[in-house]
Order: sequence, then C-alpha cells, then structure tokens
Amino acid sequence: MTGVTTRGPYAKSADVRRRIVEACTEAFGETGFRGATMKDIAKRAGISHTGLLHHYASKEDLLGAVLQLRVDESTEYLRSARALDPGDHPLEALRGMLAVLADDEQRPGLVELHCTLSAEASSPDHPAHPYYAERSRLARDYYRRAFAALAERGQLRSSTDPETLATMTVSLHHGLQAQWLLDRGSVDIPAAIRAFFAAVVPELAQ
Amino acid sequence: MTGVTTRGPYAKSADVRRRIVEACTEAFGETGFRGATMKDIAKRAGISHTGLLHHYASKEDLLGAVLQLRVDESTEYLRSARALDPGDHPLEALRGMLAVLADDEQRPGLVELHCTLSAEASSPDHPAHPYYAERSRLARDYYRRAFAALAERGQLRSSTDPETLATMTVSLHHGLQAQWLLDRGSVDIPAAIRAFFAAVVPELAQ
Repeated sequence: MTGVTTRGPYAKSADVRRRIVEACTEAFGETGFRGATMKDIAKRAGISHTGLLHHYASKEDLLGAVLQLRVDESTEYLRSARALDPGDHPLEALRGMLAVLADDEQRPGLVELHCTLSAEASSPDHPAHPYYAERSRLARDYYRRAFAALAERGQLRSSTDPETLATMTVSLHHGLQAQWLLDRGSVDIPAAIRAFFAAVVPELAQ
Repeated sequence: MTGVTTRGPYAKSADVRRRIVEACTEAFGETGFRGATMKDIAKRAGISHTGLLHHYASKEDLLGAVLQLRVDESTEYLRSARALDPGDHPLEALRGMLAVLADDEQRPGLVELHCTLSAEASSPDHPAHPYYAERSRLARDYYRRAFAALAERGQLRSSTDPETLATMTVSLHHGLQAQWLLDRGSVDIPAAIRAFFAAVVPELAQ
C-alpha cells in the first residue's frame, strides 16, 4: 500500500497489468518461458486472450515486464544505492548481502521464477540470456571486490584467489536456492552462506 | 563401441531409440520437459511423429527413458560399485568425486539437461520431481558421511557441521554448473570444488 491513490481507468489498467505480471511469475516459474503459453497466462490472470494482447503483444514483452518488475532482491540490492562499495567497506558489504539473502525463504515464487528462467536461459539464443549473464557478472564482481579488499587488509583466511571465491559464493547461493526448492525442510540457505563467509573471513564468524 | 554386434530389426530399432533419446536430451535441455513437444522431438530425431509414438507413447515415457539413459556422471558414480563407502574411506571418496566432477565440462549437453530439468522439477507435481529430490538426498548423504568420518578422525578443519558442509558441496556443484552454462569462459568448475574441499580438509590441499 502506498500513500498515493490513483483512480479511474489508469488505476484499473495498472491493476490488470499487476495481475498479469503475477500470473506470469507463476507460469514462468512452473513451466519456464518456453513452456508457458499466452492462453495459460490469460487464464491465470483471469482475463481474455484478447485482453492480454491489448496489454502485452507477445510473450517476449511479458518476459521483459517480469524481469523488470520481479527483480530478485539480491540483484535489486546490487543495483540500488543501499549497496555499499565493496572495495571500501568489504565487511559491511558482505553483511548487507547476507541480510538480503536471509529473506529468500520468504519469496518461494520469486526464487522458483529465477531458478527456472536462468536454467532455461543458459542457451545463448534465449531472450533472457543477456539478463542472467549480466546478473551473474554483477554479483561475481561485487564479491570479487569485497574479497580482494579483505585480502589487502589481511582479513581473508583463504589461499583461494578473490575471483574464485566470488564464483564460489554466487554458485553456492544459486545451488542452495535450487536444493531448497527441491527439499525445503532440509536446506537452510542463510546458514550455509553464513558458514561459507565465516570460513573465509574470520571477522564474519561472530 | 562394444565387442558385440547386433544385427537385424532389433539393431535398427535400438539405433532409432538411441537417436530419439539424443534428440530428447537436446530438446529437454533447451526448452525443459514442459516446453518440449513430441513434434519437435520427432523432427530432431529425423523420424515421423507416428514413428516416435511407436517407440514412446507419451512425453512422460520419453522423460523416463532420458533419465534412465542420460544419468549424469556424479549420480552414476554414487550408484555404482566404483563409489567407495564414504564412511570407511572419506578422503578417497572425496577424491573420487572430484575426478568425476572434473569431467563436467566435457559434457555440456548433459549439464544443460540436468540444470534445466531439475529447476523445472522443483514443482512437486513435475514428473521428474522424485528423481531430482532423490538425487539430491543421495549426494548430500554421501558427502555428509564423508565429512562426518573426517571429523571423527580429526581431519576436518571447519566449525560447520557435516550436514551443512554436505548441503554446501551439493549446492556449490549445482550452482557452478549453472554459472558455467551462462558464462563458460570465466567459470572453472573443478578448480572451485577443489578449493572448497581444500579449505575444509587440509589433506586434500596437496
């Protein structure tokens, strides 16, 4: 809820679009972009096929809207002003990221959406390929800069280079999400990430 | 190539089935199980739709055949007699697994198949859900027993419990495969797994 109330046809149209994006998040998470059909998305959103085409002319347009509006929290954090410069504040940067990741389990729909789409998007001709390749680079770069700054300060307890540690962090997070979706009862995402950070950065063990 | 040559209609039928499974591996890897169509699979295999139905009556039958025949190497290792009992031979068990994982990059098609299908299969109603949930448990159990045995022998340098370390290993491997598919040039799967093992088991650092 925001403090601003918009009325009239614009509000109605915004409401329909919100419902469409919700329906798409669900459909893409379950069947992937390629498996989803416009017909199924219209049905999930409770509108007609023609009504859907009025708002979004193609499945590619819908994918664009979903990736813009249902950004996962860690990417949003990386892009936002809330993210500290990891080179200047490496400990705080890693702690900030941990706080963001700890919320994954509150958003199963979003975790499922990004796991399914990113796996499908490994084909270079998939329309979401550039999005996920960039997201992966963005995250690896953030961690690499944090680990490199910690190494310079003598706060890194690892013989592994910052680049590999960054790849390990991103991979660990992604893999934990995938394992958690398969077996929610026995996978604790934040505990495992915390254990990894604590193993390589003693100051984060407290 | 095996030393046995089979001739006649049986050999021909086996050859067609092999081509169908190849076509399916490709199709499921690219578009997932739900996105793939029998028509597309028949086309990729170079046979008619009717010909495909003669061998496999449904997409579910095809999925069963693919998961049986295109088992990924690490699952095959876990199931085979080659896998050492991790409780009795924990160091050798982890070294054996490393050797298996080092070959991932030789099999991009198989890595893609299992990344795409396992993401899609996170929905409990997906026909491959039981397969991937079991695979995940099998692998976590193997690593947990290895880490627990190493802890007992004083060969584990980690304050993290064997259960969490096992979840971390499986997640790291899965996530590395996913990152590698997105950006093959900058992700080195065996190097990252080796670094992780070396960090928690000093004897594996050599």
